[in-house]
Amino acid sequence: LNDFNYDDVYQLDVDLINSNLNQLLNKHENQENVVSQAMRYCILNGGKRLRPVLALEFCKACGKKPEHALPFACALELIHSTSLIQDDLPAMDNAPMRRGQPACHVKFGESVTILASDALSIMAFEVIISDDSLNKFTALKAAKTLVNAIGVDGLVGGQTLDINNENNPIDINALKKIYYMKTGILFHAVAEMGCIAAGASQKKIIAAKNYAEKIGLAFQIVDDILDVTATSKEIGKMPMGDVKRKKTTFPSLIGLDQSRQLVTQLTNEAIDSLETFNQNKIEFLVEFAKRLEARQH
Amino acid sequence: LNDFNYDDVYQLDVDLINSNLNQLLNKHENQENVVSQAMRYCILNGGKRLRPVLALEFCKACGKKPEHALPFACALELIHSTSLIQDDLPAMDNAPMRRGQPACHVKFGESVTILASDALSIMAFEVIISDDSLNKFTALKAAKTLVNAIGVDGLVGGQTLDINNENNPIDINALKKIYYMKTGILFHAVAEMGCIAAGASQKKIIAAKNYAEKIGLAFQIVDDILDVTATSKEIGKMPMGDVKRKKTTFPSLIGLDQSRQLVTQLTNEAIDSLETFNQNKIEFLVEFAKRLEARQH
Repeated sequence: LNDFNYDDVYQLDVDLINSNLNQLLNKHENQENVVSQAMRYCILNGGKRLRPVLALEFCKACGKKPEHALPFACALELIHSTSLIQDDLPAMDNAPMRRGQPACHVKFGESVTILASDALSIMAFEVIISDDSLNKFTALKAAKTLVNAIGVDGLVGGQTLDINNENNPIDINALKKIYYMKTGILFHAVAEMGCIAAGASQKKIIAAKNYAEKIGLAFQIVDDILDVTATSKEIGKMPMGDVKRKKTTFPSLIGLDQSRQLVTQLTNEAIDSLETFNQNKIEFLVEFAKRLEARQH
Repeated sequence: LNDFNYDDVYQLDVDLINSNLNQLLNKHENQENVVSQAMRYCILNGGKRLRPVLALEFCKACGKKPEHALPFACALELIHSTSLIQDDLPAMDNAPMRRGQPACHVKFGESVTILASDALSIMAFEVIISDDSLNKFTALKAAKTLVNAIGVDGLVGGQTLDINNENNPIDINALKKIYYMKTGILFHAVAEMGCIAAGASQKKIIAAKNYAEKIGLAFQIVDDILDVTATSKEIGKMPMGDVKRKKTTFPSLIGLDQSRQLVTQLTNEAIDSLETFNQNKIEFLVEFAKRLEARQH
């Protein structure tokens, strides 16, 4: 009898992550300083926690308790939040809503938002390097993975290319590259850091990164699809944002049907790449990929 | 016979720092990606390199070669640059010029500027954690010092308080606190990290931090004075910026004469705090404090 319940496991992970994020915010709570209020607003706003959950679950798939990966998971969520906050700024996507609430700059102003995003990304490093339960070798290895994923050759570079993508048609390879740098590389880091926390073999790390790369791209293509097909209530922001900004997307390049087929193909490839893990421990990761494929928001 | 020449030593340090910063930028050079051009523009723009020079010189005062502190020195300069780039943004000080050149956002636009500042601060962590010549204990200790200095309880928090300082009169203690968080705490980190690189005693670290705190405040008060008394040619940006933004400053609180007296007092106290170091090794640090006191730009 299989007593695995995906939603229960997901919720346990989220509770662990939220409780840890809350503790981190409490550590820097300062009623005088509006930036600490903005940080809390941006972090504890009901995010889905996909990335940190994935880090915990890769740690579990490697046979360790999820708590081992908790500092890394939180660091990754802090970085993800930073990128969302900045994406919404008037100078970037100029998006007034995020997750059904006013965007940070609408609520706190632009200058506080920029400083809050700085503080959150600094906190991401703090979590990794200040956790005394981590050995120094593991901490430095994870910090290097993070740096490589989020700098000018990763997330930040991808966001820059993405801005240039507006009003400037590109081909499918250029779009894949942007999506890899903007999204895939952080999923990569998530998978890798989850495995690092568990002290996993290089073989497992490579398999995990392969899975992460596939679902990262699938995730981004689903975002493109939802931008065209979903309502603002479903996605918590105004739809058709990409169309309005004349962005190249998968639907604009290959149509909705082929985009959906590609998502299915990538999802199956992601699941196949998990074969190097103990098959009793990958139920969650298989279901995670399928849920991302089917998501409506 | 004393063959110490302050300017020669300063220039040697600056050459070392610039060459290292240039190498770091080359590592991430990407002609396709405008953010890497913006990073170069902001870093190699003739900055005075006060902070990294001070890190190298504290390392020397502790009896070690300056090269030991070079990764930390560069990390600190990268963070300092990040804060200047952000300060100039329209949402912050809205300053069109920096060091006699168009500010980054004037040349590259706001979105690229925000992303370049992200990438530079990530690079600061990269320098510390990826330098294989550093032992892991030293690297993590320095990274922790940096995190504490620049997060919401340090630089970022100070910048937030500074924004609120506009049009909102404050007293001298509140102003000192802002200046400590905005400037003093990074000088603190500079002194501490220079000493950490040399493996110095806690006693020397405390003395170095005391010196740094005094000159950090003196530095900021001189900035206040120059805002009122200097020409745009001298300071490389429009003077009277504080007055226009109705900021509380030391001259606005205690007048120009008393502000100058306070700078002298802080400089003398800084020099006195160096007595715990070998007196043959502090010539530069003594002169450094005096030059900051007398600077006209």
